[in-house]
Amino acid sequence: MATPATSPSTEAGVNAYMRQVGAAAREAASAVARAGTRAKNQALEAMADAIEADAAALAEANAMDMEAGRGRALSTALLDRLELTPGRIAGMSSGLRQVAALPDPVGQVSELNRRPSGLEIGRMRVPLGVIGIIYESRPNVTADAAALCLKAGNATILRGGSEAIHSNTAIAACIHKGLLAARLPTHAVQVVETTDRAAVGALITMNEFVDIVVPRGGKSLIERISAEATVPVIKHLEGLCHVYVDTHADLDKALEVTVNAKTYRYGICGAMETLLVDREVASAFLPALGARLTQMGVELRGCEATRNVLPGTAPASEEDWHTEYLAPILSIRVVDGLDAAMEHIRRFGSSHTDAIVTEHYGRARRFVQEVDSSSVMVNAPTCFADGFEYGLGAEIGISTDKLHARGPVGLEGLTTQKFIVLGDGHTR
Amino acid sequence: MATPATSPSTEAGVNAYMRQVGAAAREAASAVARAGTRAKNQALEAMADAIEADAAALAEANAMDMEAGRGRALSTALLDRLELTPGRIAGMSSGLRQVAALPDPVGQVSELNRRPSGLEIGRMRVPLGVIGIIYESRPNVTADAAALCLKAGNATILRGGSEAIHSNTAIAACIHKGLLAARLPTHAVQVVETTDRAAVGALITMNEFVDIVVPRGGKSLIERISAEATVPVIKHLEGLCHVYVDTHADLDKALEVTVNAKTYRYGICGAMETLLVDREVASAFLPALGARLTQMGVELRGCEATRNVLPGTAPASEEDWHTEYLAPILSIRVVDGLDAAMEHIRRFGSSHTDAIVTEHYGRARRFVQEVDSSSVMVNAPTCFADGFEYGLGAEIGISTDKLHARGPVGLEGLTTQKFIVLGDGHTR
Repeated sequence: MATPATSPSTEAGVNAYMRQVGAAAREAASAVARAGTRAKNQALEAMADAIEADAAALAEANAMDMEAGRGRALSTALLDRLELTPGRIAGMSSGLRQVAALPDPVGQVSELNRRPSGLEIGRMRVPLGVIGIIYESRPNVTADAAALCLKAGNATILRGGSEAIHSNTAIAACIHKGLLAARLPTHAVQVVETTDRAAVGALITMNEFVDIVVPRGGKSLIERISAEATVPVIKHLEGLCHVYVDTHADLDKALEVTVNAKTYRYGICGAMETLLVDREVASAFLPALGARLTQMGVELRGCEATRNVLPGTAPASEEDWHTEYLAPILSIRVVDGLDAAMEHIRRFGSSHTDAIVTEHYGRARRFVQEVDSSSVMVNAPTCFADGFEYGLGAEIGISTDKLHARGPVGLEGLTTQKFIVLGDGHTR
Repeated sequence: MATPATSPSTEAGVNAYMRQVGAAAREAASAVARAGTRAKNQALEAMADAIEADAAALAEANAMDMEAGRGRALSTALLDRLELTPGRIAGMSSGLRQVAALPDPVGQVSELNRRPSGLEIGRMRVPLGVIGIIYESRPNVTADAAALCLKAGNATILRGGSEAIHSNTAIAACIHKGLLAARLPTHAVQVVETTDRAAVGALITMNEFVDIVVPRGGKSLIERISAEATVPVIKHLEGLCHVYVDTHADLDKALEVTVNAKTYRYGICGAMETLLVDREVASAFLPALGARLTQMGVELRGCEATRNVLPGTAPASEEDWHTEYLAPILSIRVVDGLDAAMEHIRRFGSSHTDAIVTEHYGRARRFVQEVDSSSVMVNAPTCFADGFEYGLGAEIGISTDKLHARGPVGLEGLTTQKFIVLGDGHTR
């Protein structure tokens, strides 16, 4: 929106265009950082109004993308993600209103103490500055990501997939209306208007204009961005989540937790991909689980010990322990005790979310302390890994990195803290 | 210490050696992460005992480095930093005991709340894993950095300057004794035993073995590390700190604050390098300040308006506004109001520490909210930017980055947080 230049066609042209976008974002960032909560909320509500009022225009723009996508023979899965159904359009506007209702993290002061020097020293939460979002197909990310970044006081540069360019441009027009209604600079949210891939390369290396990049999409996109970016990246590589059913598990709870962890939704990153079962309870637990999951259409792949208990189960290969299926498939491994379970998680896991089912206090305690994942759970299914469930409000993604933000990243993860030092002429 | 192999001589050999060091650190990291506070403190106290007992051996090793340094015609400044005086040796052991006395950050749980789902969800502070420290000349960093990283539950790989190799190896032997006394793995702290520069290149790109790199040293070292590292870096580029004397300043306080900010110590990153004075108070304020600083041997460089008030002052060039002197030199600029002062800081500052002197509530409030530096101060000199003064205990450095840790980085900055989710068979 408010394009600094017409869409360029050469790589030098793309770079120059992206630098204009970056400079405009950097300038807008100061104004957004200073903006009050009321102005930001007003903008978000006005964006929601615009999306509701322009629903027909959004559907029309999306129809162009869908038609072009069918012409380019996009897969059914991609076309499904690309589609803006009336429900998804309503979801965008309600998402904007939900972000408006969240508490504003900016300006929050914590740990303010009087020090022996007499100075009061504490930390103030402040925006990061300019955030770049790189995403594929789902055009509703345009509204969701813009809302979170704006509420956290940041300027945003959005780079969606080329297949969604008409939808994203139409959503950007609604965002633009909202910013104008609240008298915020329209460059606070910019949608990159060129579909040239060089724009991504420019975005992730403009360190003077961009403070952080959040890639949202498949593993290959995120690996490429991580490898090439010089701007820091909040990344979510994959969710290869485990549930370990301990010897001391209540097997009824274990059944409910594991079935829920696998079947709540197959496509989410918190879905269980590998089940680890202690050898001592394998024959008591697996038949009931196998029956439930098979009935629900889940394909099972097991280690040899699993296949002894559940004859007819397909064999799991080493490759299976490494695989995030995101599908109705579950690999099952029988292990010898807690240490073997934690060793499997350490070796094959993705540090996303891992759970133990046990009634044994000491084992629960050890699992929680020793498993090095962004979320560690006891007697709860991994599918709970979600910003809303954690009380963070909406999330921009789930970070499997250790630095800055780990686990679901909500408004707080889109801010940082500075120290404030208040004195009255003190000297050292 | 406990070298996995003899010091290699080819680049392939260095890489293989560093990978052994990395793998040993990764393995030790799990044990250190699980170690109790008592064991870690016992190790730190035993290290301090060893340094005190082996003070003569340390001095002897250091004498070898000093002699070699003189032979290589190192500068007086470098030789000064390299020297282990009895005071500095005592400083290392008392530093170790101070870190032992700090609260252990590992395992601290915060924000644990019962959610609508019935689950209890909170955050647990956990170690980062393996930390690489790259530093120059000062051998006492070996003990200081190892202590902080160990207390925060991390394994450490220390790469000191080649000019300090004998001193560092002798300190490492004391650290080794301390780890053994507490039955912690000796690979929890490793000093890289080759002085080959390829070792640094390997350290900063071994993402599977190293979680974070902290370079401590000059700007060129840090810029090189930042450019080449694929492991995340906590970096401290420079401290180009400003004090702005506002129209509404109490000029007596302003005099004390600015003199202290410049002269407390010239070589620290929190030293004031540029003074900004509001035009309305320039002629009332500058003569007294000029007299005090000149008398203390500080060279002044001023803009035209400054030189009108303080005739004989050398002219400041654009280059001066960009310069971190770390020396008894001060650049002075007369500005037109708060916005001009903040604009100068935005343009020339290094986002380290900046201060305003004012009695005006609204201007203090705006300065605190709008200046985007790691520390923002009111009526206090910038030289207070320090982990001890902030109540963080010792610091590993002062980060001018926005992500993860900002400002003085103490024990907390050497840890991260994971989510813990406690249920009783809940499903979604």
